[in-house]
Amino acid sequence: MSEKMDQLKAILGEVSDLGRAAAVLGWDQQVNMPPGGGEARGRQLGTLGKIAQEKFIADEVGQLLDDLKSEFEPGSDEAAMIRVAARGYEKAKRVPPSFIVEQAVVTAKAFDAWVEAKAKSDFSIFQPHLEKVVELVRKYVSFHPQADHPYDTLLDDYEPGMKTADVQAIFDELRPQQVELIKAIAASKQVKDDFLHKKYNEKKVWNFSETIIKRFGYDFNRGRQDKAPHPFETTFSVNDVRITNRFETDNPLATLFSAMHESGHAMYEQGVNPAYERTALESGASLAIHESQSRMWENIVGRSLPFWEHFYPALKEIFPSQLDGVGVRAFYKGINKVEPSFIRVNADEATYNLHIMLRLELEIAMVEGKVNVKDLPEIWNAKMQEYLGIVPPNDAKGVLQDVHWSGGSIGYFSTYALGNLVSAQLWEKIEKDIKGLDEKFRKGDFSELLGWLHKNIHQYGRKFEPQTLMLNVTGSKITPAPYVRYLKKKYGEIYGL
Amino acid sequence: MSEKMDQLKAILGEVSDLGRAAAVLGWDQQVNMPPGGGEARGRQLGTLGKIAQEKFIADEVGQLLDDLKSEFEPGSDEAAMIRVAARGYEKAKRVPPSFIVEQAVVTAKAFDAWVEAKAKSDFSIFQPHLEKVVELVRKYVSFHPQADHPYDTLLDDYEPGMKTADVQAIFDELRPQQVELIKAIAASKQVKDDFLHKKYNEKKVWNFSETIIKRFGYDFNRGRQDKAPHPFETTFSVNDVRITNRFETDNPLATLFSAMHESGHAMYEQGVNPAYERTALESGASLAIHESQSRMWENIVGRSLPFWEHFYPALKEIFPSQLDGVGVRAFYKGINKVEPSFIRVNADEATYNLHIMLRLELEIAMVEGKVNVKDLPEIWNAKMQEYLGIVPPNDAKGVLQDVHWSGGSIGYFSTYALGNLVSAQLWEKIEKDIKGLDEKFRKGDFSELLGWLHKNIHQYGRKFEPQTLMLNVTGSKITPAPYVRYLKKKYGEIYGL
Repeated sequence: MSEKMDQLKAILGEVSDLGRAAAVLGWDQQVNMPPGGGEARGRQLGTLGKIAQEKFIADEVGQLLDDLKSEFEPGSDEAAMIRVAARGYEKAKRVPPSFIVEQAVVTAKAFDAWVEAKAKSDFSIFQPHLEKVVELVRKYVSFHPQADHPYDTLLDDYEPGMKTADVQAIFDELRPQQVELIKAIAASKQVKDDFLHKKYNEKKVWNFSETIIKRFGYDFNRGRQDKAPHPFETTFSVNDVRITNRFETDNPLATLFSAMHESGHAMYEQGVNPAYERTALESGASLAIHESQSRMWENIVGRSLPFWEHFYPALKEIFPSQLDGVGVRAFYKGINKVEPSFIRVNADEATYNLHIMLRLELEIAMVEGKVNVKDLPEIWNAKMQEYLGIVPPNDAKGVLQDVHWSGGSIGYFSTYALGNLVSAQLWEKIEKDIKGLDEKFRKGDFSELLGWLHKNIHQYGRKFEPQTLMLNVTGSKITPAPYVRYLKKKYGEIYGL
Repeated sequence: MSEKMDQLKAILGEVSDLGRAAAVLGWDQQVNMPPGGGEARGRQLGTLGKIAQEKFIADEVGQLLDDLKSEFEPGSDEAAMIRVAARGYEKAKRVPPSFIVEQAVVTAKAFDAWVEAKAKSDFSIFQPHLEKVVELVRKYVSFHPQADHPYDTLLDDYEPGMKTADVQAIFDELRPQQVELIKAIAASKQVKDDFLHKKYNEKKVWNFSETIIKRFGYDFNRGRQDKAPHPFETTFSVNDVRITNRFETDNPLATLFSAMHESGHAMYEQGVNPAYERTALESGASLAIHESQSRMWENIVGRSLPFWEHFYPALKEIFPSQLDGVGVRAFYKGINKVEPSFIRVNADEATYNLHIMLRLELEIAMVEGKVNVKDLPEIWNAKMQEYLGIVPPNDAKGVLQDVHWSGGSIGYFSTYALGNLVSAQLWEKIEKDIKGLDEKFRKGDFSELLGWLHKNIHQYGRKFEPQTLMLNVTGSKITPAPYVRYLKKKYGEIYGL
């Protein structure tokens, strides 16, 4: 059997190498590539993806997975490798190569249409393309065994084992409590954050972001931060995990929080068991678990008072005029200002999940065929009014704001909100396990936190499905209660509710 | 037939994509990669190379090449694509995969040993590894049909169609004339170049290098210059051709000449017929033809008086104190100072080829088995005395200076010298075809030169073998006479010979 396992590992190792080579090409495309390079880069990425897919769905792989499926002790790394690989294999086998080609063509055009539609704030430009995308997504669902709900098939690609009904139940519990909180905040005295929108020197902000994430424990010997149009994290190996960031003149300190966010993803990847490299267990458990790490470092840590009690004096020394007269508490309140807004990526912690719920509801309705694409702008605006009490002035700030649908990515918005919930759920456990966390943060010491995350989450890679992992670590599947408690405590204190 | 040609193009297109993806990974390794990334990067490059090789030497490719070999009009692009691909296929088929693995292992260790040996200037550390490398090179030769000389097989990989005897005949004609010239220069009044070794600001030099190469016509919309330990050019597609450069504090203006050199390679690649992309005709005709382009821009253009009559005022404005009291003629003489030296890469135009001849002679002797590796340092030093009149103080500055042998690259040193010869041979033709070239350079206008090179050399990619190309363009195969005329004229004037 060990010979067959070696054969399987050799093939999956090459599939992994191809995927990570593609990640390098993708990173370069965002960070360095000169304007002329795009066309050839697309072809090269296409070839790498095609070869990886061919290798992965080869009959030999199916045979080896079959031969090996009962060979290893349940709970062992090997058994998990076989299980996760077999799961991916079964899924990949069901999708005909012709569909992948068709999808690539449709989404390439849809992306261009979306760019134009957003620029002109004209949904009608995007509409016919989104209709095709939705059609393809429904076709994709049809390749797979019937689930309780057609959306399950899509969600499962990002959150293994998670059901649409589970997410709906969680969101149904969460929604009224978040809406209520936002109303209470709206009715109270507002906080000031004008000092966040002054002119800040880009290089100094950038350097400060690196000071912070180095202190967190993001290892620059095994990573780096570069400028790109959008912040993201990408993994070339457990020892080369990179992040990107940007600088927006109208929101200059957002660079700090983006760095914390992406370094949260990166520290996860840097902490995966190196023995899982080039196997099905490399990388993180799911998008939600991944997002829990980024949101924990960005929000629970990076927007906390103890954190800024440590870092604020240094920041103020670098930007004395911008922060003149602003004490650490005022700064803390400013970076936690709650304000219903149109754009998801800029939303604060209290309103963010409502943006997600809106999208999830629309996606489910599209997949069910219960909503016409042409009606999306209207429904979008109605839900914005209902959840956040505001209506976007145009579709660019409404239904057209996100890139995801143009790329055929339907099914993963919910993982962003689940990530928030997971972060708070883990946090309650962390606070039990590590005493005096606030005091450590005040000293700029994050080592015990990172150690806990490495030990309890990171090292396992994809070994456990997300709900199993949460059950193992916190004693409960994903639940919204800790996040609601977290929000109420934090904003109750800030807004004096 | 068109269907078979399409099949072949599809496969060779993927092979090209894999090679160029590997180039991106290699570039990133030199330019960006954090220290931890090396091990995984090596594996990823290994996988890309292995898959490309498997695809290329598949029996299907052999069958298609065979079926197509007489199908196209001689002289057509298609016929050339088949010819060049078949040539590569025949060669690749002869090398067993096990040999490639063995070579990778041996050269990886040899490289590490070379690094240590050079650092300690102790040839004995490198010696056993070089012995294995030479053994492998001889084994490689044995896989191929017997040639007039065993070294032919190696040379042919870099200079298709070129024979060892041809190169020896060229060098035999060249050697005494270069030695004589150097003696004459040594006996005349020396030029000053102290101003080249003052302190120059790195960023300003770097920016000036980009000013120059933009003016040359290197297209930054399809390229970029980055910092790396060694200058090199690399091609990801005809529309993404990058160069690297470095800054050495003890030789600060070398950055300018390296940029000119690498941009010469890059403009070649940017000028290849885009229809050749992803076929056997992409990239340049041979290493010598490639080097002729880099050396032409670096030396014939970049170390000429008309060139500096244009650029020197701007340089002097940026570095007024460093160049205080140095007129353009003094500057021109300084950058063309001839001085026998130990290190090839720093050698001036008059002595450079002698460094190459020495290496070629040693390589041929090693491949013939006529010299023992352990005797190399002694032979090296004797030849340095004979050709350049100096003896290296240690092996780090002698036999250990170049990386090439540690990587198994035996057979291509001569292309560096051939490139010099080709550059001068082309130049004589260019001066006939373009009138008033000096005057154009004085105005900073290089467009006609680049246009000529695009039209006569670049566009053809690998369509013609180097000797055929030279015959087509200049009416003669590679010959040393133009280079000797070029050197005598230039240095005769500078040194008043």
